[in-house]
Amino acid sequence: MNGAESLLTTLINNGIEVCFTNPGTSEMHFVAALDEVQGMRCVLCLFEGVLSGAADGYARMARKPASTLLHLGPGLGNALANIHNAKKGHVPIVNIVGDHATYHVQYDAPLTADIEGIAGPVSHWVHTSTAPAEIARDAAEAIRQAGSGRVATLMLPADVSWGDNPNGAEPAIERETPLPVPASRIEAAVARLTSGKKCMVMIGGREITREQGLLLSRIGKACGARVSTEVFPTRQARGAGTAVLERLPYLAELAIDHIKELDHLILIGAASPVSFFAYPNVPSLIAPPQCEAFQLARPHDDIDQTLAALLKQLGGSGIEPEVHPLALPELATGALDAFKVGQAVAHYLPEHAVIVDEANTSGLALAPATTTARAHDVLNLTGGSIGWGLPAAVGAAIACPERKVVCLEGDGSAMYTIQALWTMARENLDVTVIIFNNRKYSILELEFGRTGARGGKPGPKAASTLRIDGPDLDFVALARGMGVQAERATTAEEFNALFADAMEGKGPRLIDALVPTLFG
Amino acid sequence: MNGAESLLTTLINNGIEVCFTNPGTSEMHFVAALDEVQGMRCVLCLFEGVLSGAADGYARMARKPASTLLHLGPGLGNALANIHNAKKGHVPIVNIVGDHATYHVQYDAPLTADIEGIAGPVSHWVHTSTAPAEIARDAAEAIRQAGSGRVATLMLPADVSWGDNPNGAEPAIERETPLPVPASRIEAAVARLTSGKKCMVMIGGREITREQGLLLSRIGKACGARVSTEVFPTRQARGAGTAVLERLPYLAELAIDHIKELDHLILIGAASPVSFFAYPNVPSLIAPPQCEAFQLARPHDDIDQTLAALLKQLGGSGIEPEVHPLALPELATGALDAFKVGQAVAHYLPEHAVIVDEANTSGLALAPATTTARAHDVLNLTGGSIGWGLPAAVGAAIACPERKVVCLEGDGSAMYTIQALWTMARENLDVTVIIFNNRKYSILELEFGRTGARGGKPGPKAASTLRIDGPDLDFVALARGMGVQAERATTAEEFNALFADAMEGKGPRLIDALVPTLFG
Repeated sequence: MNGAESLLTTLINNGIEVCFTNPGTSEMHFVAALDEVQGMRCVLCLFEGVLSGAADGYARMARKPASTLLHLGPGLGNALANIHNAKKGHVPIVNIVGDHATYHVQYDAPLTADIEGIAGPVSHWVHTSTAPAEIARDAAEAIRQAGSGRVATLMLPADVSWGDNPNGAEPAIERETPLPVPASRIEAAVARLTSGKKCMVMIGGREITREQGLLLSRIGKACGARVSTEVFPTRQARGAGTAVLERLPYLAELAIDHIKELDHLILIGAASPVSFFAYPNVPSLIAPPQCEAFQLARPHDDIDQTLAALLKQLGGSGIEPEVHPLALPELATGALDAFKVGQAVAHYLPEHAVIVDEANTSGLALAPATTTARAHDVLNLTGGSIGWGLPAAVGAAIACPERKVVCLEGDGSAMYTIQALWTMARENLDVTVIIFNNRKYSILELEFGRTGARGGKPGPKAASTLRIDGPDLDFVALARGMGVQAERATTAEEFNALFADAMEGKGPRLIDALVPTLFG
Repeated sequence: MNGAESLLTTLINNGIEVCFTNPGTSEMHFVAALDEVQGMRCVLCLFEGVLSGAADGYARMARKPASTLLHLGPGLGNALANIHNAKKGHVPIVNIVGDHATYHVQYDAPLTADIEGIAGPVSHWVHTSTAPAEIARDAAEAIRQAGSGRVATLMLPADVSWGDNPNGAEPAIERETPLPVPASRIEAAVARLTSGKKCMVMIGGREITREQGLLLSRIGKACGARVSTEVFPTRQARGAGTAVLERLPYLAELAIDHIKELDHLILIGAASPVSFFAYPNVPSLIAPPQCEAFQLARPHDDIDQTLAALLKQLGGSGIEPEVHPLALPELATGALDAFKVGQAVAHYLPEHAVIVDEANTSGLALAPATTTARAHDVLNLTGGSIGWGLPAAVGAAIACPERKVVCLEGDGSAMYTIQALWTMARENLDVTVIIFNNRKYSILELEFGRTGARGGKPGPKAASTLRIDGPDLDFVALARGMGVQAERATTAEEFNALFADAMEGKGPRLIDALVPTLFG
């Protein structure tokens, strides 16, 4: 078999069975190998930012990496923002980046670039394969490095792809197991939690399962500590039957106030919280000066074991968790706004749905509504780079074809990777997209005020860069132009009917929800 | 004034009066400064790949850099592919990349990334400003580094932006002048050109003006050498009144055959040609083994002086150039194809139009038709990273509001940066976009065969990654969804009428031209 076939076989042998791709000439032997090797689903995206976000959404829901196939340095560059998001969310991805043939790089052809240099800042591991005989072993190493939450980027020169690999493919490697947290650290945490001081246990990292949330609730009740998630959990089980947990606010001012009385912050998977951005006269660190942050478990540690051991040490085995009931809101009427959208989403959301949340400001109206909806999973934007939601919905739907995916998407952020709609149509994915169309970068209007620039009041030029009307974006036309059924809602009644219909049916849908901004 | 205001003033003092932007929180003080400092036009783009391509198109037509304003590492990542194209085309760009406040970077907030690391591979110069008092001087240095054909990337931390700059702005720096080529090199070139061996003079680099082309034609006639442009000139004067020059073919096989008999290749601005990609059993170098490549002038040398000196040394001052006459093709009828589009474009193209050519395979039908059209400029894709055409048309139209811009765009490549249409509408730019809609990555079907993968015949999975039908892209709907007037043409008559109307009128237009692929 040639190098590409040995690479593809190695990926498949390791359970990597989806490749999100936008290939070019240097990847043609990899593309050809898709018909020679059985078992790889190849998902074409029209832009690389779509495919990297899809790989992220897929990996979060499948709990294993997808592969990406990218075309040289510029293709990797296009994918970079969503690889960044995956890296920050501890999501595993195996990137395969085609390169010129090894002997061709020296000639500085138009598409030649320092691919390793571009890959480095968004990868935990970077390697360029140098010979067909090495590529399968390199791929196995990439898979090992990606593990359950890292980004591995492997460059595949064209001649490594087309040359014969006498060693053939590599078998399945041993899967990474999470590291147990030593008893001494559990005891150190227990000492803090039973000290009588004000404590919070904050969970985050790769995922917060329903079971983990329930354990955390019981821990809180066992020792009187507050229990919370980080601001933007990578994946979190929510809705009826999940534990009642706080969530750290996004706005630094609010978050600082929220935990200002803490003496100890026990971190499980989560990192010690910091402000998303710096603002004049606002501290970078969210926790107050007197608060000691104690990293009990890192994202790749065994979170289940940590929680179980903690609960046991606290003597809480008989304690019941505090659990959200099932309580569906009534449907609203009248002019549409983000809160009314939230009511309808919570009302109709089917069991086991996946919510991909990139609604940004409008999202503040949504999370409270779905707290007691039917049990579902939520994926959040982990790296702050907008243009993630639509692609992540593509990946989530491919990972979980039996689950309804609901993508809550801001109008501004939708436009970074709008091409994702085409892949939803092509693959007939069961995704319902709600565009919160307020005709502006509402988050930036808010942020402009927070930075205090020009006294918080944008002048005419600044204001024009925060508005995306003139012309208004017609998301119905955009979706239909890419083969996705779409309608517009300006009233709650219209939205309710459209969303109910979308939840009943299957396949890609978009609702262009005209809503006022929550701010300003 | 604060750092942002001193930066902005320094840019304006140096004639940089357009900023293509997609800002975020860390750039809000820069955005605020747009209303405090007069003289900067700020052009909002919905995706960073649009703004970097627009900066490229602007700089080519304005013959000076635009600035870009980007949001942290991911924003720079989104812009990377078109910065790569600019770098390969010797186009000056000054990138301003907002970063977290200097004291905030240590906390690894979600958007923290190694921005310098991302910038390095696509920049000639990279610097992070560290204090408000330094930012104006750093900006002046960035402008100096960008010169007339390089990429300078300056990171602007938020606190450097909002802090007071006691030094204020910097004045205009001295503009870079091209380096003269020494007489000894001119003489060495003349010795080769008069040796009786088979010679070609190839021109390229930053621009090929009408005057340069005419000088080159006279040089060819003076010494009997063939005269040619490189494959993809960054900017070239074409049409009636320009010189008859060969153009090196794109396909390596054809290019190798085209110059297989050469003994000397004299390079003026152009680099020695190499194959765009490597293919099994095809050489990387286009020139034959016996051919000596002689780099007479580099892209930043004084091309005017070089050509004049060469002509003088060859005693050709009395020789007339070979010039294209004005000869407009008849209009075609019947089912539309790329050749018929080319006839209509050549027929109706107004004097001084700017053609932005990213038609890829369809483009092969177009260049011959416009050879004798009214005088115009053509911008080509210099770095091979598709998704450049629509953005470059935005920039060209902003640089030259009095000139008609015609963007020849493949359907596949259009989708990488389709958001450019919105900026065309918002700024009411006089751009006519022609989408060559053949429902596939036609170039990749061609390239699949050339790589010899799977005997040149894609299997069903491979074939599906080369086709972008299912669903078909409706570019009329996409354009209208972003506020651009659009129509579809399936016959030559329809196309002729639409294109004639577009050339008569002003403002953004799109024609979705359904054409069969030229290959396969």
